[in-house]
Parts: sequence; C-alpha cells; structure tokens
Amino acid sequence: MSLTRFSISLDADLVRRFDAKISADQCPSRSKAVGDLIRASLVEQEWQTDDEVAGALVLVYDHHKSDVLQRLTQLQHDHGSTIISTQHIHLDHDNCLEIIAVRGHPRQLSQLLMRMKAVKGIKHVSLAAGTTGQRLR
Amino acid sequence: MSLTRFSISLDADLVRRFDAKISADQCPSRSKAVGDLIRASLVEQEWQTDDEVAGALVLVYDHHKSDVLQRLTQLQHDHGSTIISTQHIHLDHDNCLEIIAVRGHPRQLSQLLMRMKAVKGIKHVSLAAGTTGQRLR
Amino acid sequence: MSLTRFSISLDADLVRRFDAKISADQCPSRSKAVGDLIRASLVEQEWQTDDEVAGALVLVYDHHKSDVLQRLTQLQHDHGSTIISTQHIHLDHDNCLEIIAVRGHPRQLSQLLMRMKAVKGIKHVSLAAGTTGQRLR
Amino acid sequence: MSLTRFSISLDADLVRRFDAKISADQCPSRSKAVGDLIRASLVEQEWQTDDEVAGALVLVYDHHKSDVLQRLTQLQHDHGSTIISTQHIHLDHDNCLEIIAVRGHPRQLSQLLMRMKAVKGIKHVSLAAGTTGQRLR
Repeated sequence: MSLTRFSISLDADLVRRFDAKISADQCPSRSKAVGDLIRASLVEQEWQTDDEVAGALVLVYDHHKSDVLQRLTQLQHDHGSTIISTQHIHLDHDNCLEIIAVRGHPRQLSQLLMRMKAVKGIKHVSLAAGTTGQRLR
Repeated sequence: MSLTRFSISLDADLVRRFDAKISADQCPSRSKAVGDLIRASLVEQEWQTDDEVAGALVLVYDHHKSDVLQRLTQLQHDHGSTIISTQHIHLDHDNCLEIIAVRGHPRQLSQLLMRMKAVKGIKHVSLAAGTTGQRLR
Repeated sequence: MSLTRFSISLDADLVRRFDAKISADQCPSRSKAVGDLIRASLVEQEWQTDDEVAGALVLVYDHHKSDVLQRLTQLQHDHGSTIISTQHIHLDHDNCLEIIAVRGHPRQLSQLLMRMKAVKGIKHVSLAAGTTGQRLR
Repeated sequence: MSLTRFSISLDADLVRRFDAKISADQCPSRSKAVGDLIRASLVEQEWQTDDEVAGALVLVYDHHKSDVLQRLTQLQHDHGSTIISTQHIHLDHDNCLEIIAVRGHPRQLSQLLMRMKAVKGIKHVSLAAGTTGQRLR
C-alpha cells in the first residue's frame, strides 16, 4: 500500500468543529476521519451506480408460520449466486433472526429483498448496505 | 474568515477514486469536496443532538378536500415561532405544493411534521433537513 | 372522487399496536393511517422508477462568498424547466436559506442538486422528496 | 394467534395503484401488503423510541491492517451483552466481511457502531435495523 499526502484549506471554525467531532467519536486522527467520510461517499456511489457490492439482509419471522422455512430455503437456493452464507438466531420461542450475507449488484439484491419480503410469515426485512472493499483502500 | 491548512495521508488508490468522483461531480477542488463531506456530517450531528436547525417541510394536498386549507393555516399559526414563511404552488387544477421554511429544534420540527401529516386531505409530507449555517463556515 | 371499501385481516396484537400509534400520532382514522402508509410507499416508488415528481431543494450559503449569488442564478436559469419558484430567507447577517420548488424526473433533480452542491460558497444542500400528487388520491 | 378483521375506505384510484404495486411486488394479498407497511412503521418507531431492537452490523476490513482483528475482538467482548454471534466471510485475499448479530437498545447499538467505526483499518460499517419481533405479529 502506498500513501498519498495532500493538503487542504478549510475555514478555521469548521476545522475546530470537525476536531471536536473527531474527539467525541473517539476517532484516532484527521486522516482516518476524512478517509471514513470519503469511503462512505464511495460506497454510496457503488450502490447508486449498480457496481458489485456486499452486505447483509436481515429477516425476522415466526418459524411456526405456514411454510415460511421451506419458502425461504427455496428462495435462497434460487439466488445461490448472490448468497454467501446464512446465520440463524433463535430470538425467543417463536421469533427467528436470519442474517444472510450477500454479494452482487444492487439491482439483484433489491430483487432478492423484494422476494423475501413477499413471503407469508416474514415480519420484517432490512438491509445493511456494505461493500466488497476491493476498490476501497 | 481565517483558513486552516492541514495535511492528511490516505491510500493512493483511495485518493485516485476520490479525485475521479470530484471530477464527475464537477466539484472545483479537493478542499471543497472534503469540506462538503465534513459540513454534511456536522449537519447530521445537529439533527441528532437536537441543536437549532433549519429546513423545509413540503406538503402536497388537494385544496378541494374538506377544510384542509383552514386546518393548515390554523396549524401554522399555532407553530408561528418555528415557521418562517410559506410558498404555495398550484401544481394543477386540484393539487397544491406548499413549502414551509422552518427553523427550530429537530424535536419541534418533528412535532410539526406529525401534526401536518395528521390533517385529513394531506397526501404527502416530506422534510428537507438543513441548517441555520451559523456554526458552519 | 369514488371510494373503494375493502376488508383486511391482521393479527389482533398488531392491530392493537397500530391503533396505539394512530392515537399517539393524532391521526383521525385507520383509513387515513393506512392511506398515508400506502401513499408514502407509492411516492417512494415514483422516485425509484424515475416518474415525474415534485419537491424542494434547500440551500444554505453565505451571500458574501465570492460570486455565489450569480452562479446560483445562472444555474437556476439553466434548469428553468425543472424550477418552479424560489423562496429566499435571511437567516442572519451572513447566512441565506434558499428554497427552490422543483418538478421533474428524479434524475433531472439529482443532476440539479449535484450542480448546486458544486458551487463554491454553498454550505449545505438538502432535498425534500415529494410528489406531483396527480396519481395520488 | 387471533385475527382482527376491519374495513377501510380509500379513494378508488389509490386502491388501483396499490393493487398494481402489490402485484409487481409479488405480494400474496392486500392484508399482507398493509400488514407489511404497518410492521415497518412500528419497527421504525421502536428505533426512534429506544425500545429493544435487533439487527446486524456489517463491517468490511483488510485483516492485514495493523491490529484490526485484535481490536475488533476486544470491542466485541466489551459489548458482549449486545452481541449475539458473528459471521465472518473472506471476500478476497485481503478483504473480510464481518456480520455481527446484535440485540439491545438503539442507543447501545449506535455506541457500538461508533466504536467499531473508530477502529483503524475498518473500511466501512453499516447497519441493518431490524426488530426482536416480540411485539410484532
């Protein structure tokens, strides 16, 4: 890994407020803080421009409901190329939290999310929009 | 206005991708681009920590519906201290776009938004979360 | 306007919690509350599928900075077909809140937002994503 | 589980558009579609009112970087009561996708997210905001 060093000029008050935020966030340095903002803006761009991304789909459902387990398994096999692996947590006697690690194009992941949501017995679906990290040092 | 100049070190590939984004966004300089990211993160913080903020509430409604105009006017007078001014646009024969410039604490603005939303005849309410700019150079 | 009446069956506990939320939100009826959720989901769809939409761009800037006023006016004339009208508020001695009522396709509005953001002296740009209301009763 | 059946009255055009969306989303029924909107609004409320929630934190990092693995493990032990389990995926030679199933109050999870983000070597952190499902039939 090679580093690039560059200077920027910003209003002194703005820098003071930024430094206060860096300290409150327990961030180790200005370089790390600026780098985080830049990386987050690039990940947002990856999702908008339909580049390859990675993330997690989180489902909550009652495993007693109809044939929810079978339908979900079927769906996951249909989307085998975008699904990496699945983590299953027993929240309580009835409720399951299922976390599906996914990788693919945003459009594919939206399609999968929509199909998951349509399964009867699913209570909630959410998405953590991450990155493959490949183009992101 | 006094400027502070400082240097940061980031991975060379990350800087290359950031430069490409800056150019695609037609942003004039790295300082402006980094400043924009910092300012956006500080505005986000203002909304989370319930500082004084400014922005706009956007309503869409059919002015023929029941007593929607009267109710909205009443509401705006009740929240006179947070409302700066109102802009009214006739979208078509039935639909009105009303844009209300607001200033206050995020909690007050959420309260106002909730009360607007509850008015019968309102089709949609949205919010543009901005800033008073005072602490933001 | 003609009404359609239909029945839905939901878990009794879910309905209880929904009724509590309706009451807390001061919403006048279940029909209004369900209608609001449906309309919000349709407006979201309009923005995703690049239908014609309406909303507001909110800018905050220091009018003393370079030629920000001239650049903004130039930009607004370049995008005349998407801009309906502008509301200008003097937040304090330095800061201006400018609210631009816009109408067009989401892609056009994003383009305009990006160009506004790139103007030197602009502190913050935000967007309230609304609707023309035409397809939304 | 007991069901509650109730009727709502909505504009005929609105219902037509909703039915078109239900069909495009491959959703099996109006009851399921309305229930989904209601559940999503209640989960949003759980996150705003700081009720107990569940979800997933997604991290992307280069495992070669400094002592990122050790720091992350340390952090996870410090937050043992909110972390349920962890799933680790090797995205490529350098990049790791780590998905942490979490449960707790939104404030605790934000705290954890902030501390994860501050670790040197972390490229990106995102959150899927879900629910424990307990109050959500």
